[in-house]
Amino acid sequence: MSRPLTVSFVDPESRRPTREVEVAPDGSLTLLQVAQSAGLEIMATCGARGRCRTCRVKILQGEVPPPTMQDRVQLGADEIQERFRLACQTRVIGPCSVLPAPPLTEGGHQILAAPTRLDKGTIALDSGVEKHVIVATPPTEENHQTSDLEEIVSRLPRPVADENTPLGALRDLPQTLRAKGGQVTVTTFLNRILDIEAGDTSAHKLGIAFDIGTTTIVASLLDLDSGEELASVANMNPQAVYGGDLMSRIAYAQFDAKKLATLRAKALNAVNDFIEEACAKAGVSARHVYKIVVVGNTCMHHVFLGIDVSYVGLAPYAPVVRHAVVVPATELPLKAAPHAVVCLLPIVAGFVGADTVACVLATRIYASEEQRALVDIGTNGEVVMGNKDRLMACSAPAGPALEGAQIRHGMRGALGAIEKVRIEGDVECDVIGNVPAIGICGSGLIDAAARMLDAQVLAGSGAMRHDLKDSLAAPLRDRMTKTAEGRNQFVLVHQEESGKGEAVTLTQNDIRQLQLAKGAIYSGILTLQKVMGTSDSELAELMLCGGFGNYINTASAVRIRLLPPLPLDRITYFGNAAHVGAQMALLSETERMRANELARRIEHVALASQPNYQDVFVDAISFAMPA
Amino acid sequence: MSRPLTVSFVDPESRRPTREVEVAPDGSLTLLQVAQSAGLEIMATCGARGRCRTCRVKILQGEVPPPTMQDRVQLGADEIQERFRLACQTRVIGPCSVLPAPPLTEGGHQILAAPTRLDKGTIALDSGVEKHVIVATPPTEENHQTSDLEEIVSRLPRPVADENTPLGALRDLPQTLRAKGGQVTVTTFLNRILDIEAGDTSAHKLGIAFDIGTTTIVASLLDLDSGEELASVANMNPQAVYGGDLMSRIAYAQFDAKKLATLRAKALNAVNDFIEEACAKAGVSARHVYKIVVVGNTCMHHVFLGIDVSYVGLAPYAPVVRHAVVVPATELPLKAAPHAVVCLLPIVAGFVGADTVACVLATRIYASEEQRALVDIGTNGEVVMGNKDRLMACSAPAGPALEGAQIRHGMRGALGAIEKVRIEGDVECDVIGNVPAIGICGSGLIDAAARMLDAQVLAGSGAMRHDLKDSLAAPLRDRMTKTAEGRNQFVLVHQEESGKGEAVTLTQNDIRQLQLAKGAIYSGILTLQKVMGTSDSELAELMLCGGFGNYINTASAVRIRLLPPLPLDRITYFGNAAHVGAQMALLSETERMRANELARRIEHVALASQPNYQDVFVDAISFAMPA
Repeated sequence: MSRPLTVSFVDPESRRPTREVEVAPDGSLTLLQVAQSAGLEIMATCGARGRCRTCRVKILQGEVPPPTMQDRVQLGADEIQERFRLACQTRVIGPCSVLPAPPLTEGGHQILAAPTRLDKGTIALDSGVEKHVIVATPPTEENHQTSDLEEIVSRLPRPVADENTPLGALRDLPQTLRAKGGQVTVTTFLNRILDIEAGDTSAHKLGIAFDIGTTTIVASLLDLDSGEELASVANMNPQAVYGGDLMSRIAYAQFDAKKLATLRAKALNAVNDFIEEACAKAGVSARHVYKIVVVGNTCMHHVFLGIDVSYVGLAPYAPVVRHAVVVPATELPLKAAPHAVVCLLPIVAGFVGADTVACVLATRIYASEEQRALVDIGTNGEVVMGNKDRLMACSAPAGPALEGAQIRHGMRGALGAIEKVRIEGDVECDVIGNVPAIGICGSGLIDAAARMLDAQVLAGSGAMRHDLKDSLAAPLRDRMTKTAEGRNQFVLVHQEESGKGEAVTLTQNDIRQLQLAKGAIYSGILTLQKVMGTSDSELAELMLCGGFGNYINTASAVRIRLLPPLPLDRITYFGNAAHVGAQMALLSETERMRANELARRIEHVALASQPNYQDVFVDAISFAMPA
Repeated sequence: MSRPLTVSFVDPESRRPTREVEVAPDGSLTLLQVAQSAGLEIMATCGARGRCRTCRVKILQGEVPPPTMQDRVQLGADEIQERFRLACQTRVIGPCSVLPAPPLTEGGHQILAAPTRLDKGTIALDSGVEKHVIVATPPTEENHQTSDLEEIVSRLPRPVADENTPLGALRDLPQTLRAKGGQVTVTTFLNRILDIEAGDTSAHKLGIAFDIGTTTIVASLLDLDSGEELASVANMNPQAVYGGDLMSRIAYAQFDAKKLATLRAKALNAVNDFIEEACAKAGVSARHVYKIVVVGNTCMHHVFLGIDVSYVGLAPYAPVVRHAVVVPATELPLKAAPHAVVCLLPIVAGFVGADTVACVLATRIYASEEQRALVDIGTNGEVVMGNKDRLMACSAPAGPALEGAQIRHGMRGALGAIEKVRIEGDVECDVIGNVPAIGICGSGLIDAAARMLDAQVLAGSGAMRHDLKDSLAAPLRDRMTKTAEGRNQFVLVHQEESGKGEAVTLTQNDIRQLQLAKGAIYSGILTLQKVMGTSDSELAELMLCGGFGNYINTASAVRIRLLPPLPLDRITYFGNAAHVGAQMALLSETERMRANELARRIEHVALASQPNYQDVFVDAISFAMPA
């Protein structure tokens, strides 16, 4: 065996080495693996498949390995020349000093999926959690054929299944019963006891609703009596370092229980941190959080519970379990009241998960007289269509392009991102924070494509019309340039106005990525229309759900055929419907039970197994309406 | 602060120091506390109250503290002179070297409570645990609105509540379902899933029944299909080092959660060791133990579950919970199948615990046409009386005298113990193992008292008739001697025939201890007879349950009024009925459900709160029939 090599990672801010790792010199490990083994979180949005740029690093010292095909595609000749590489593609073959590079372009994330407040006026406040303040007498000489528990249960206004009382609630019962002259507060959920506390704690009856998204996690702490929101917390899903989209996340943990445990720990720790943070914000104790509702897509749901997702990632993408799982907080464990009930909403099928069920609950599409649709645009898009008589749903794997991943200058909707584009004579961009642009986010991408179509820079097929550039006015003509690899691109922001030191452009490849993403979602809409025999004119409303929907220009979305050609007033934005649905199920058992009934009622349409789906998809990819 | 002192403990066999402990020189700790803090298990049968001799030590070097009153009473002048002390009474005031002494007289415990085999012919084999071998097909493209779990559940012969499937059984389900061509074995308990395994494991369906007694723990590993016993294990309850009788055990853990946890850990570890040992003996895997039934008195029951016993030790001795607790093995945790059901039988009231319910189940007294009684003689005695129409029960705190504790030369039924006594001219003793006697066990004590009464060495009041010794034949007269403290005693084995280097005697105090113990039990029988209005002549049978009952001479027991004056053929020995009842509940849900019904039906009589109980007790203490 040769001696191990030393890989030194340099802190982007201080430019000093922060971590040194000894590595076997056999070239078996990539820089990304070495970094992750050392606890350095280098993002790998595509799941280490060389399909995005998030894990870009610069080799400051040491031998630079020859670029792979993925390096060439993602980074281009200039960056390769400047010693940039994709950490996921670069094997360690000699001692080196490495600078993780992606944070340079993505400072200060803004969370798209900010919590949407629930209109609590519209739902019944029947959370199932009740607090009963009673005064009980410990067993006496005269009343000796009884127990502490029975004395308490006998004072409750309604019978409970005392044999279901958690052991943990019994262990300290003797002291609790005798601490405050027999005054105790008994917390029940439905017909069983969750907690017995000394004295009167009836003022503290809390619950938390979680929406665990692939990209972000959002939580709201609610008072279960009043329905008031006491605090909300939102942040990135820390699992993202193991893959930005669902399939990458699954690929990471597939057939590897240890990696599944790693993913799960990320989610559990984040959820526990959120509980702590929300309770600290509201000045309350997590000890009094008795009900927790969790929604998320099938992958997030299974990983959160520690259920193997290997086959969730393989056709037909079957979930391991679909029913509404309810587990005690101690079993996960979550740091709430020890026997708090953790309620996951049910799954419909495949990737039509608990988050979609929550969206259906929130939008009340199930009660509509007319045909409606809801569309949740994300790395995985879901479409639900129907009315009070029939509901159908499908899942469309859009990929992360609409979140700015796998786009040359793509980025999330953060400071410096182009979010709106106009072309009137020349290109004008609105940039988040009014700073020089450093990249483009999803809504900007949709806008840009729509305007480029209008300006005939782009053909309906998606091809950039560099062949016709001479017929364009000078400002646009000058923007039609070539990449270092000689491929067509369109300059949105010239180098001298960019905040990045180089022009912000859209390449032909970027447009293709956009077409695949929007084509997936639109093909879902088209397929459901076909299966249900519904036309555009019959759709009374199309509701956009999810954080992303908030930011897109619906006219542009219709222009590029991400959405069907409806009158714009029929396209509405609902907000974070999944999170609203989670809050509804938290505050109301009626709503939670309705979610169970809905999950059984919604019919799942598996796109890939639909006859002629390929034809539909090919049509949906196009920007041009079919003849 | 002065410098700490060093206490050195010497190994009785090698006579070399085994443990050195630094102790504050403030006299705040006893030698027993110091030994226990160092992990040395010195027995303290009376709960460190100076009421027995089990914690006897010899101070080999260093200053010997002046003897306490308890030292004088328990050890006598000679041993005090020889530097013996009770570890529980002796405070550390200077550096010393200490020899734990009790093992010298009690080598090789024989377990009284050997398992009693169940007559399995008489009960239904309906354990509730079933194994279903099925072949399931993972979800397919055509059958996509389903889940792995649903595919399995759909193949079961009867519906199950799949929402109650333990999370742990779901986590590996995808691989399990696909490992052996879809062949899986689903283990259910009643209507829920406990386990899903790949392949056919239907041959392995095991259960264990535990009787956790104050003194001993007994376990039987059974095949749930055939009812066959595959292995049995019995051993001392390792909690005994923290107190031999119930009240001492409770006193140790009272108002001290940490000490309760210590007691609990002792029991849990022992139970887990028993499972491992039984499975090893039988050559099977604990992975296939799906049902565990546990019986024990109220204190053992609560401690096993980690429930505070503080108030179980205070009048009116109320249990915290009485219903039949069922918990998953993971929650305790026990090392069986992860989701094995651990079923505790219910409690009637006070100290009429799950063990008594098991005895009622086993003896079938509940179905008797005639009046019957069952008596479980132990440190706490229980009496149940009645027939198919009515059952009453009480608990009598006999204390550990009948197990040889708190008796000057008392010991358990082990090698060297006098177990039978005859007086025909002179005293003749049968000694366990036919070796020179070193002490006397409970059955010997009862025999001795009965024969001493016959020989008029003892008066009906319990007084030794040293005043009348001159009227006795020489051999007996010579046995009526004085203790070093000048109190009356009766020599059973002269010093020269003893294996102990000193005479084995019964002191007047020993007789008083016996009277209190037998009086407690007999007063329970008398009280139930009084409350039920039943006379001796109406009692068709009195069944002795428990390990101790096996060894006593029933004629002697009647003679000393431990038992009522029934014709001897009406006094029967049932064996370890609690353990038999546990096995019945293990093999049959019919029997386990019956136990629940019995616990509700049995009427508890609290002796202390009965009118005139003191009169009954005073009568019961006497050896002489009332006029």
